[in-house]
Amino acid sequence: MIAEIITIGDEILVGQTVDTNSAWIANQLRLIGVPVRQITSIADTKEAIVNALNTALQHADIVLMTGGLGPTKDDITKRVLVEYFDDELVFHEEISAEIEAYFNSIGRPFLEVNRQQAMLPKKSQVVRNDLGTASGMWFKKDGKDIISMPGVPYEMKGLLAKILPEFKEHHNLGEFYHRTVLFQGVPESVLADEISDLENEIRGKGINMSYLPSTGQVKIRLTSTLDKKETIATYIEQIVERFPGAFFGYEEDKLESVIGNLLADMGATLGTVESCTGGALAQRIVSVPGSSAYYKGSIVSYAYELKESLVGVANDDLWNYGAVSKEVIEQMARGGIEKLNVDYCIATSGIAGPEGGTEMKPVGTVWIAIGTKHKIYSKKFQFRQNRERNIESTVVYGLNYLRRVLVGFEDRGE
Amino acid sequence: MIAEIITIGDEILVGQTVDTNSAWIANQLRLIGVPVRQITSIADTKEAIVNALNTALQHADIVLMTGGLGPTKDDITKRVLVEYFDDELVFHEEISAEIEAYFNSIGRPFLEVNRQQAMLPKKSQVVRNDLGTASGMWFKKDGKDIISMPGVPYEMKGLLAKILPEFKEHHNLGEFYHRTVLFQGVPESVLADEISDLENEIRGKGINMSYLPSTGQVKIRLTSTLDKKETIATYIEQIVERFPGAFFGYEEDKLESVIGNLLADMGATLGTVESCTGGALAQRIVSVPGSSAYYKGSIVSYAYELKESLVGVANDDLWNYGAVSKEVIEQMARGGIEKLNVDYCIATSGIAGPEGGTEMKPVGTVWIAIGTKHKIYSKKFQFRQNRERNIESTVVYGLNYLRRVLVGFEDRGE
Repeated sequence: MIAEIITIGDEILVGQTVDTNSAWIANQLRLIGVPVRQITSIADTKEAIVNALNTALQHADIVLMTGGLGPTKDDITKRVLVEYFDDELVFHEEISAEIEAYFNSIGRPFLEVNRQQAMLPKKSQVVRNDLGTASGMWFKKDGKDIISMPGVPYEMKGLLAKILPEFKEHHNLGEFYHRTVLFQGVPESVLADEISDLENEIRGKGINMSYLPSTGQVKIRLTSTLDKKETIATYIEQIVERFPGAFFGYEEDKLESVIGNLLADMGATLGTVESCTGGALAQRIVSVPGSSAYYKGSIVSYAYELKESLVGVANDDLWNYGAVSKEVIEQMARGGIEKLNVDYCIATSGIAGPEGGTEMKPVGTVWIAIGTKHKIYSKKFQFRQNRERNIESTVVYGLNYLRRVLVGFEDRGE
Repeated sequence: MIAEIITIGDEILVGQTVDTNSAWIANQLRLIGVPVRQITSIADTKEAIVNALNTALQHADIVLMTGGLGPTKDDITKRVLVEYFDDELVFHEEISAEIEAYFNSIGRPFLEVNRQQAMLPKKSQVVRNDLGTASGMWFKKDGKDIISMPGVPYEMKGLLAKILPEFKEHHNLGEFYHRTVLFQGVPESVLADEISDLENEIRGKGINMSYLPSTGQVKIRLTSTLDKKETIATYIEQIVERFPGAFFGYEEDKLESVIGNLLADMGATLGTVESCTGGALAQRIVSVPGSSAYYKGSIVSYAYELKESLVGVANDDLWNYGAVSKEVIEQMARGGIEKLNVDYCIATSGIAGPEGGTEMKPVGTVWIAIGTKHKIYSKKFQFRQNRERNIESTVVYGLNYLRRVLVGFEDRGE
C-alpha cells in the first residue's frame, strides 16, 4: 500500500504559503503504516491536476489531494475531478441546508456560489466537513482510492480524521511500529560512526533506521512492522547504552519539558541569568505550559551595568576578565541563585556576533554556568555560525548542561 | 524561464519535517520573475531522484534541488548526480581544509566521512557553503541549470543568495521591480476595504498587488516591470497616507530594527520588564545585530515574588488587582525605568494560556505599558488563540506601542 499526496494551489508555488498539510497527512499515514512515495505541489490548472493525478496513480494505491475546493473562480479541483472520473454533479439537499445554517450563524449572506458547494460528484463518497463549507470527496477506481480535501489546514485535519480509520479498516491494514530516541550534544557523524555496526545489524533485520538532526540534537528512528516491536526495543536500548550522557528522551520529548519534569519531581525551582541569549533561554523554558510551577524568571543583563547592579558581578572582574569569562559566568550563576531565590540557575555569556569577536574570543565563544545552592559548574563552548544560530546553540547546550547536572552526569563525568 | 523544485529526504515524506525550503526558494525566484511550475518531494533513493529529475527537465529550464547532501549513508544525492551526469568526483583540497578548520574550531574530530564532503563532481560548478560542510553543486546541461543544495534551511538560504544573482545575470533576465510596504495593527480586511479604489486603479495599470498578512502585520507588495517604478512609488505613497499611524517600514524592515534605529538616533536606551512574554520580547530586540548600543536588558519577572523583589511592584497591588492589571503593569514599567536605568521600558503582563483564564480575565487578556522618564502609557489588549500566538502577539503589539510613543503618535492620538 503506497500513497502519494498532491497539493493544489498557486499560493504554494509562489512561495506565499508553506505547505504544512503534506507533513500532517504523511505523519497520519505513517501511523497506519502507509508510506508516502511522493508529494507534489501544483498549480490550479486542469492540465496540472490531470497530469499529477495520472502520474500518481501509476505508483500509488491511494492519492490524497488538498486545495482548490473554495467557492472562487480559481478553485477548479471539483470540476476537473468530475471530468476526470467521467462523473456528474448532483445536488445534496442536506449539505446545502448545513452550509446555509452555517452562514446564518456567522451573520453572512448565503450566496449562489456557496450553494454550489453542495453540488458534488455522483460517483464519489461525500465526506462532510464539520469545520467549513467544502466537503471531502472520496473516489474509488480500479481498486485505488482518490481523496480530495480542502486546503485549509484545520478543515483538512477534521476530514482526514474521519477518512483514515475507515480507509484502514476497509483495506485491513497491518499494524506498524516505530520508536524514536533523542540525543543531545553528540554530532550526527560521531553517533553514526560509533553505531555503524548496530546500524548494519538493524537494517539486516528489516528494520528501517533514520537520522533526524537539528541544532545540537540527533533523533534516531527505527521503524518496522508491529511484530518487530521487541527487536526494536532491544536495539534502542543498545543505542542508548553507547551514549548514556547524551540520551535525553523518546518521541516528541523536548529538552525544556524533560528539565521541567525533572525539576517538578524534585520540587526545585529554576531561574536564568542571560547575556548573549538575551531572553531566548527564558522564552524556551516558558514555552512549556505549566512552567510557572518551577520557573521563577530571568535577569537579562545585556549591559555590563546590569550585570553589576542586578546580578552582583564584581566591577573589577568584568573589566579584568571581560563578560565572556569563567570568572564572570560563575558570578552570574551565583548571583542568579541569590537574586532570583532559586535552587538552580543557568547563566549564559558569549559573543553571538556578527560584531564583538576578538582573536582570543572569536564570535561563537560562549560560557555557560549552572548554579546550584552549593556548587557552580561552568564550561566554555565554541560555536560558530551566525548570530541566530549561536543564540540557539547556547540555549540548547545550556538546557542540556542543566539536565546533565540534574541527573548527576556532570558529577560522575559520564 | 520556468523553474521546478525538488526536495529530497525521507524526513519530509514521513511527515517529520515541514518543507519550508520550497516556499523560500519559490519566493526568491518570484522576485527575479521566474515562476515555479511544480514542487516535488521525494525519497532518498536513486530511482526517485533520477525520475524526478527527468520529469522536471521535461518542463523546466532550472531545477533547484535540496537535501541528501549530509555525511551519512542515507544521503545519496551527490552519488546519484555524479552518475546522472556521467561525471566523477574530484577532491577539493581547499574545501577539505576549510571543513577541517571548521571541525577544529569547534573541537570535533575531522572524520573520513567529513573529508568525503570535499569530494565533488568535476563537471559541476562548486558553490562554497559558508555555513556548513556540504557544498552547493551547479550543473549546466543542454542549456538548463540543475542546482543541488543541502536541506538545512539557513545553509540553503546562504547558497541561494550566492547563486541567484549569478543566475539572473547569466540568463540576462528582465528586470522586475517590486516594493513592499508594511503596516502594523490594522486588520487586513479593514486595510483592503479602505484602499479598494486604489487597488482597482493599481491593477488597471498592470501592476500586481498582493497582501501578505502575519501576526498583527500586513505587507502590501506591488510588482511590475522596471518601467513602472515611478508609478509604483506614487501608489505606495498614497497607500501610506491613508494609514500613517500603522505604517512602519518597507521591504524587509522589522519592527525591532525600526525601533532600534529610532532609539539609536535619539541616543536613548531601552529596557523591558516581562511577565507573560517570558523573555520573548527581549529576544526579539536582541535579534538585531548591534542592539547592545541601546538595549540594556530585561527583568523576566515570571513569579509574583520577583515582581516585588526585582521590579518593586507593591505587594498589596499584586494581591488586590492581580498581575494582569493597569495598576501592576504601570508599576512594572516604572520599575523598569528605575531598576534598569533606561529612558524607555516596555512592560508586559497577561494570561497566555492554556490555563489561568477567568471570566473577568480570559486567556488572551494582556496589559502592555510603555514607561518613559516622565510618563507611563498603558493599554489592555484582548488576544485569543493559543499560548504561542498570544506571546507572539504581545511581543509585536508591545514593539508597535513603543514605536507609536517614540514617533509621537500616541501623544497626538493618530
